Amino acid sequence: MNASKLLTVGLVQHACSASRNKNLERSQSGIRQAAADGARLVLLQELHTAVYFCQTEDPRAFAMAETVPGPTTGLLGKLAKELAIVIIGSVFEKCAAGFFYNTAVVLNPDGKLAGSYRKTHIPDDPGYSEKFYFTPGNRGIKAIDTPVGRLGVLVCWDQWYPEAARLMALDGAQLLLYPSALGWDAGDRADQRDQQLEAWITVQRGHAIANQLPVLCCNRTGTELAADDSGADIEFWGSSFACGPQGEMLARAGNADQVLLADVDLSRNAELDRVWPFFRDRRTDLYGDLVKRHRKRS
Amino acid sequence: MNASKLLTVGLVQHACSASRNKNLERSQSGIRQAAADGARLVLLQELHTAVYFCQTEDPRAFAMAETVPGPTTGLLGKLAKELAIVIIGSVFEKCAAGFFYNTAVVLNPDGKLAGSYRKTHIPDDPGYSEKFYFTPGNRGIKAIDTPVGRLGVLVCWDQWYPEAARLMALDGAQLLLYPSALGWDAGDRADQRDQQLEAWITVQRGHAIANQLPVLCCNRTGTELAADDSGADIEFWGSSFACGPQGEMLARAGNADQVLLADVDLSRNAELDRVWPFFRDRRTDLYGDLVKRHRKRS
Repeated sequence: MNASKLLTVGLVQHACSASRNKNLERSQSGIRQAAADGARLVLLQELHTAVYFCQTEDPRAFAMAETVPGPTTGLLGKLAKELAIVIIGSVFEKCAAGFFYNTAVVLNPDGKLAGSYRKTHIPDDPGYSEKFYFTPGNRGIKAIDTPVGRLGVLVCWDQWYPEAARLMALDGAQLLLYPSALGWDAGDRADQRDQQLEAWITVQRGHAIANQLPVLCCNRTGTELAADDSGADIEFWGSSFACGPQGEMLARAGNADQVLLADVDLSRNAELDRVWPFFRDRRTDLYGDLVKRHRKRS
Repeated sequence: MNASKLLTVGLVQHACSASRNKNLERSQSGIRQAAADGARLVLLQELHTAVYFCQTEDPRAFAMAETVPGPTTGLLGKLAKELAIVIIGSVFEKCAAGFFYNTAVVLNPDGKLAGSYRKTHIPDDPGYSEKFYFTPGNRGIKAIDTPVGRLGVLVCWDQWYPEAARLMALDGAQLLLYPSALGWDAGDRADQRDQQLEAWITVQRGHAIANQLPVLCCNRTGTELAADDSGADIEFWGSSFACGPQGEMLARAGNADQVLLADVDLSRNAELDRVWPFFRDRRTDLYGDLVKRHRKRS
């Protein structure tokens, strides 16, 4: 039996307004609260400095993009250093002319940028026009080393892809993390709502189980009205959660603003892969077709 | 909105004894009952004609192996024709000298063998010495056409592998099916038991969600004592279930013998891939590392 390697984590979910300063105040206040309660790693939600501007396609929104490193990583890095914790934030990244990314950033307890991850799976459905704004991530699916562990940071839509979780696990991630911004459309029926939310949680618990890694997911709250007449209002469902490497729920938030804390035992990963040694039996000789683009018609 | 394409399915879970005839009687009686209740597809559990002989390594057990087609497919085919249904059975397959497989067989309503699938991921942990008996499947992960749909038939340990489910989906499967034989070891603590069972169900619901396909899983019941003094008794946990393409539970059995029925709506698959179009956004350009055998040390 390994010695327990407990890591207290904090997930800060909150609603956003048009004011970048107010949004950052909420994030920072949540981070301070989590750290005061013992968190050594704090995960923020996707694009936490702004409203979810991808509800509509508006060229003016590009003015909000910033570099990495840049203002937000500077601010989060300073806070990470002050509190001596790891912070995972999310930035609308401006890279080069015509290249913008939806980027998760990891700040180390020394205040420095440990690394960043550019969202690779980009959604585009009513209310989530991300393909207009974001170039698909070009740096692969790579874990990031920090003093509290090697982190598999992915972003929102990546949540639905077993490939992304597996690649992070193969790259040595000890923890999967998803900053997220997802909710119900105004038109979703009551009976669909629960099922959508449970599907979203279940598929991520599935990644935990298949890869024997804990999963942290931090999701936005609040209702945001579409800027146009599309009616694409979104009621972000919060429900941030932490589960262990067997998919067991450690903590789950409601849909209001909340700082969610959980104790993750990183020694459980290695315990599990001795009881159910999944990785040993992967049939890599048969997996070549996973790079096929098209599905056979049925 | 597509027209509903309802398929009534039956899952026959039962305990097994040393008598092949009695085991086959139980399977057949369950199949008849499911068909009488309207099932047009019946899924049996893994290796339903015998006790789970893989609890120990015993060269004499190879004498039970049979060819495909062979006695069991002949018998199931006859019943499939009589009842005009599709039956998925499971056979300890003897192929050539030194080559034995854990094989799922699909019988069509005309009584003919629609196809078979040789288990590709082979477990080997205390009480499950399958690597001694079975050569890993050599025919790839391919779906099988039947009059009720194109079936992605996998077997037990495959349940834990997102790669297997995804390859079946890419090969056009409309339904994922898992004959299974899994349970608790005598030494498992009470608090571990629930978590193991829920992990097993959740990871399969995750495959349903990620691939937008219903999942059927039929698992053995009963306690089987190890033939040797290893103490590797197994309490097979039953809990066969059917879930829809959003992971929603349609029916779930307890741990006693049972014929479980469910109505699966195959038109929901295509509805879902218009709401959440996951396959469109797969980053096949980044998935090459999925064929890597080793995990990076963390």
